[in-house]
Amino acid sequence: MIRVAILGASGFVGAELLRLCASHPQLQPVRLFGDSQAGLKLEAVHPQLALAFPGLAVERFAPERLDGVDLVFAALPHGHSQRLAAEIIARDLAFVDLGADFRLDTAEEYETWYKEPHQAPELLSRFVYGIPEINRARIRGAKLVAAAGCYPTSAILALRPLIEAIDPASIVVDAASGVSGAGKGLKEETHFNTVDENLTAYGLLTHRHTAEMEMALGGRVLFTPHLAPMNRGILATCYGQAHGPCDPLALLRNAYADEPFVHVSERPPSTKWTLGSNAVHLTARYDPRTGRVLAVAALDNLVKGAAGQMIQCANLMLGLDETAGLSTVGMCP
Amino acid sequence: MIRVAILGASGFVGAELLRLCASHPQLQPVRLFGDSQAGLKLEAVHPQLALAFPGLAVERFAPERLDGVDLVFAALPHGHSQRLAAEIIARDLAFVDLGADFRLDTAEEYETWYKEPHQAPELLSRFVYGIPEINRARIRGAKLVAAAGCYPTSAILALRPLIEAIDPASIVVDAASGVSGAGKGLKEETHFNTVDENLTAYGLLTHRHTAEMEMALGGRVLFTPHLAPMNRGILATCYGQAHGPCDPLALLRNAYADEPFVHVSERPPSTKWTLGSNAVHLTARYDPRTGRVLAVAALDNLVKGAAGQMIQCANLMLGLDETAGLSTVGMCP
Amino acid sequence: MIRVAILGASGFVGAELLRLCASHPQLQPVRLFGDSQAGLKLEAVHPQLALAFPGLAVERFAPERLDGVDLVFAALPHGHSQRLAAEIIARDLAFVDLGADFRLDTAEEYETWYKEPHQAPELLSRFVYGIPEINRARIRGAKLVAAAGCYPTSAILALRPLIEAIDPASIVVDAASGVSGAGKGLKEETHFNTVDENLTAYGLLTHRHTAEMEMALGGRVLFTPHLAPMNRGILATCYGQAHGPCDPLALLRNAYADEPFVHVSERPPSTKWTLGSNAVHLTARYDPRTGRVLAVAALDNLVKGAAGQMIQCANLMLGLDETAGLSTVGMCP
Amino acid sequence: MIRVAILGASGFVGAELLRLCASHPQLQPVRLFGDSQAGLKLEAVHPQLALAFPGLAVERFAPERLDGVDLVFAALPHGHSQRLAAEIIARDLAFVDLGADFRLDTAEEYETWYKEPHQAPELLSRFVYGIPEINRARIRGAKLVAAAGCYPTSAILALRPLIEAIDPASIVVDAASGVSGAGKGLKEETHFNTVDENLTAYGLLTHRHTAEMEMALGGRVLFTPHLAPMNRGILATCYGQAHGPCDPLALLRNAYADEPFVHVSERPPSTKWTLGSNAVHLTARYDPRTGRVLAVAALDNLVKGAAGQMIQCANLMLGLDETAGLSTVGMCP
Repeated sequence: MIRVAILGASGFVGAELLRLCASHPQLQPVRLFGDSQAGLKLEAVHPQLALAFPGLAVERFAPERLDGVDLVFAALPHGHSQRLAAEIIARDLAFVDLGADFRLDTAEEYETWYKEPHQAPELLSRFVYGIPEINRARIRGAKLVAAAGCYPTSAILALRPLIEAIDPASIVVDAASGVSGAGKGLKEETHFNTVDENLTAYGLLTHRHTAEMEMALGGRVLFTPHLAPMNRGILATCYGQAHGPCDPLALLRNAYADEPFVHVSERPPSTKWTLGSNAVHLTARYDPRTGRVLAVAALDNLVKGAAGQMIQCANLMLGLDETAGLSTVGMCP
Repeated sequence: MIRVAILGASGFVGAELLRLCASHPQLQPVRLFGDSQAGLKLEAVHPQLALAFPGLAVERFAPERLDGVDLVFAALPHGHSQRLAAEIIARDLAFVDLGADFRLDTAEEYETWYKEPHQAPELLSRFVYGIPEINRARIRGAKLVAAAGCYPTSAILALRPLIEAIDPASIVVDAASGVSGAGKGLKEETHFNTVDENLTAYGLLTHRHTAEMEMALGGRVLFTPHLAPMNRGILATCYGQAHGPCDPLALLRNAYADEPFVHVSERPPSTKWTLGSNAVHLTARYDPRTGRVLAVAALDNLVKGAAGQMIQCANLMLGLDETAGLSTVGMCP
Repeated sequence: MIRVAILGASGFVGAELLRLCASHPQLQPVRLFGDSQAGLKLEAVHPQLALAFPGLAVERFAPERLDGVDLVFAALPHGHSQRLAAEIIARDLAFVDLGADFRLDTAEEYETWYKEPHQAPELLSRFVYGIPEINRARIRGAKLVAAAGCYPTSAILALRPLIEAIDPASIVVDAASGVSGAGKGLKEETHFNTVDENLTAYGLLTHRHTAEMEMALGGRVLFTPHLAPMNRGILATCYGQAHGPCDPLALLRNAYADEPFVHVSERPPSTKWTLGSNAVHLTARYDPRTGRVLAVAALDNLVKGAAGQMIQCANLMLGLDETAGLSTVGMCP
Repeated sequence: MIRVAILGASGFVGAELLRLCASHPQLQPVRLFGDSQAGLKLEAVHPQLALAFPGLAVERFAPERLDGVDLVFAALPHGHSQRLAAEIIARDLAFVDLGADFRLDTAEEYETWYKEPHQAPELLSRFVYGIPEINRARIRGAKLVAAAGCYPTSAILALRPLIEAIDPASIVVDAASGVSGAGKGLKEETHFNTVDENLTAYGLLTHRHTAEMEMALGGRVLFTPHLAPMNRGILATCYGQAHGPCDPLALLRNAYADEPFVHVSERPPSTKWTLGSNAVHLTARYDPRTGRVLAVAALDNLVKGAAGQMIQCANLMLGLDETAGLSTVGMCP
């Protein structure tokens, strides 16, 4: 068994990592770190995990508590990993970070979008960007992976195979996420009565995930995120001006023919098809009326957009079956 | 009192017309027509209306049952009104139709999008397109109004004041609607377990409301509708390539300064602010990074997108206070 | 016009009072009090009210700010009104309090359930318990009314006409509420991701509304509240051991034949029939297999369970039409 | 591998059986039967299963299509299995039926509640009632199992260990289910706009699951089901008159100490803790005020209340690890 530590275990991604590890043949959570709920038994923090991990509790992080650990997952607010990474690297552990800290190529880009100087710019180049479908070779065998953001995963998987067919300066990504993407913190924006029966746009022009999309797609992206009244799921509807008539559905099918977690179909995808699974469902169209390409992606923001992708990356890093512990089947209904 | 007949009274828009009439000082529903549920008491069809209209029942439509009626509201599937309109017009009644039948300028345009020949092309020019904010003078005093579709109302109100500032061939409208927009008919697409906790795109490239948007905006529109897991509400996020730097928020504020039902704010609007009300909330931005304009509209598809707009039009047609019977206050929470 | 002040204006009931006042012919909100959001314009606190009350803002409460006011509505956490009531009474204003402070008959009963001594026991007997259907004569002309709780309103209206037919020591009330009943405060229990797609029981054996039910029904009640994944609505399913075969539906029909807001039917009621309205829908059964009576009530916790009932009481207190400003029509869909 | 056939594969329970089989080490679906969608590829019927079972399609049932099959799961409307069972039994296959057909002890009881004569009364005694926690020994090694209903599973697990402590004639079960319990058929009751933001009681006094509860508990039960606005989950709140003071929580803890899928806690359970898992969460109280016992159960109606329990039974029948392919971890958020 591979002994796993989770930083941010009391959050939503932490819970999801634990849920997936419970079905994983080799990953065994042994240390759970979380500041605000340190000292509580896991059952008190996440009752849904009570039967699976009766002995675990949440602790305050301390580097020496990583003794005996083989793999570290971090699901922390941005800014935290860059302060902790050196400790983890010093111990030569496999490390998959979900924070934004090590995703971008340069400290300048980070500062532009996150409005604060990067604390460990010298480490940026050592992390591999974690989307296996576009970066599998580099992830396999890597020690340090920065798993992609949820919105970027959806937009990048939808658009990357089409990028040659469109003007890269013309990309619009209009996406909506379930509320879990906003995290467990208590805010008026995530109060049930704010969100239920409601749809809203937010972060107009300024959402930080724009930077990741532009980096991976090599283009200029106008990205508008929305909040949808559901627990999970991202639907990204992406637009680009085509160089000319093209067959984007065929491009997607070719690109992903052998991918275990990507399904391409003419039918517009539903986020619910992906609920709880690591699957991505895609479709695309060329519109002769406007000369535009349209591509749509659906995924579960907590699985393929977070915990599932982290495990998929870890499987590759550790030489395990890439699909171990991960389902392709969405929970419908 | 103005005596009102409703065609399609057993549907969602029919119920909403009745809900609004119950608070309207002058509109009194006297005849309810609906084929599938003809013969039932209103209480059996819409229990929520039992206390307000204890005596009413749903009947099968027959022209002579319009005797004594002053105003006809029709909320029927497209194709029906064009067969009934001549009868209503012959009686010289005020008529507000919500179907798509009389919204477009030409029978050709209708046939292009609705895939069937128009049955009453000679009547098309007699109907006024029913969005008071862009067409008030013509609606006032008109006898025949074709109230706009729900998606077009949102996109047109968001973009019309900005149209001079953008390339009209560059418009993308990415919108999502609550499920009531799909009507009361029983379909797998509207089963609770299909829709709940789900977000999906549909009608890719081909949604018929595109035609209305193009007609009213005078441009070329790529429109992608989505289905959101909520009862009501439309959020339309609209994009256009700007001719140059501009202030779209100021353009909206100027255009709608005196409108009783339009609120413009820097804050991105939420559909919930409009729940049950006839209000539209708008915002807009110019993005210097991509040179695009972004405009967002929120409204209740069954009120400003249907029954409320019908009543607003009827108020104008009949010389009543335009706001009679209509609330501006969304039901939050 | 009657000039209205609202204490707790930034909360959910405050917003609902304002929504209802916007359609009320005589009640005009002039002062809005709320501690945490004092200083903000109403539009910033409740954007859905922006078009209706453009000039209003939220202030910190001070007694002199009641100058010129005719009617005070208070929707505050329990314990607050008992500290403020003397000031309001001294000004001889009409006062409808929604807190629990003045609902119970004795200070002892209050202390038993609320675990703190009552601060103004001498005022308890001056307040009339505010459910017009059971207390209309006393409310009419009263100056001080303690509007009933949301759960008690549902259980009392369902069971009061049946109380002679059942053993009053045998009552079980099993009820569920939408999340708005828990208020606007930020708690893990009301985070969207806690509540959505979830049903839970809470307050087992100890919910404070038990005391009100027992007072108004004159019996012993075991009350179990539940939290349902919806914005609004209470459904109360109530049980009692019958003295013998009886016709509880007829008892309800007789009791409420002339009530404008109560609808009795054989069909089991749905909370949605009451959404946004002041209506209560009831049904009942006698079960010959078990000798029990079953009664079910549905209402909107923020209207008939709060703001609507407050206005209904105020209408009576001030000699207005009891139904002024109140709808009987639930917003479906 | 054990080769599995599923009758009713196009329904909700069929989809859930497939989802669970996809993670099961030994169960391999090889034949899918479903009348209305026969001829379609699985991907067209259940897109969420496209990646897991790319080769499967739905067929019309014919007995010879069971050749080579080891295990049959049936999830059909009641009345169907009693017509098919003889064919399956003749082939000596392991058979787990989820219909109501073989759950009750006698044909008379079946006819009383299902209002139709039983077609295969001679087979009734050959089926074992399928709740492993109360019937494990008999299920182990059985060939024919009638898996319990969703509501009965919840009420029986909550009350069975308490039955000695209460008057068995005094039981009230007040339970609510997510909408998937009503199946995939298109009905007004399951239209999104009927159910969303709604809570309703149904089947007053007459729900057929009452019979199963009475059979397994040996008492008289008044059962009131409710429909809650969520995809999945049952919460059952159960009441009984106690013989005297008792400790029902201790009784539950003792009864289920070694059960892999039952969790007992003082904290009132949430259905969401069980989402997608085979877990049941329980709590209980004794109320000294009313002398009643209160017990609450939460489970996922499609897993522990259907497909999961079927697989748990099959695991026992076939000598596999009872927990194979089944998770105890609810999908939160």
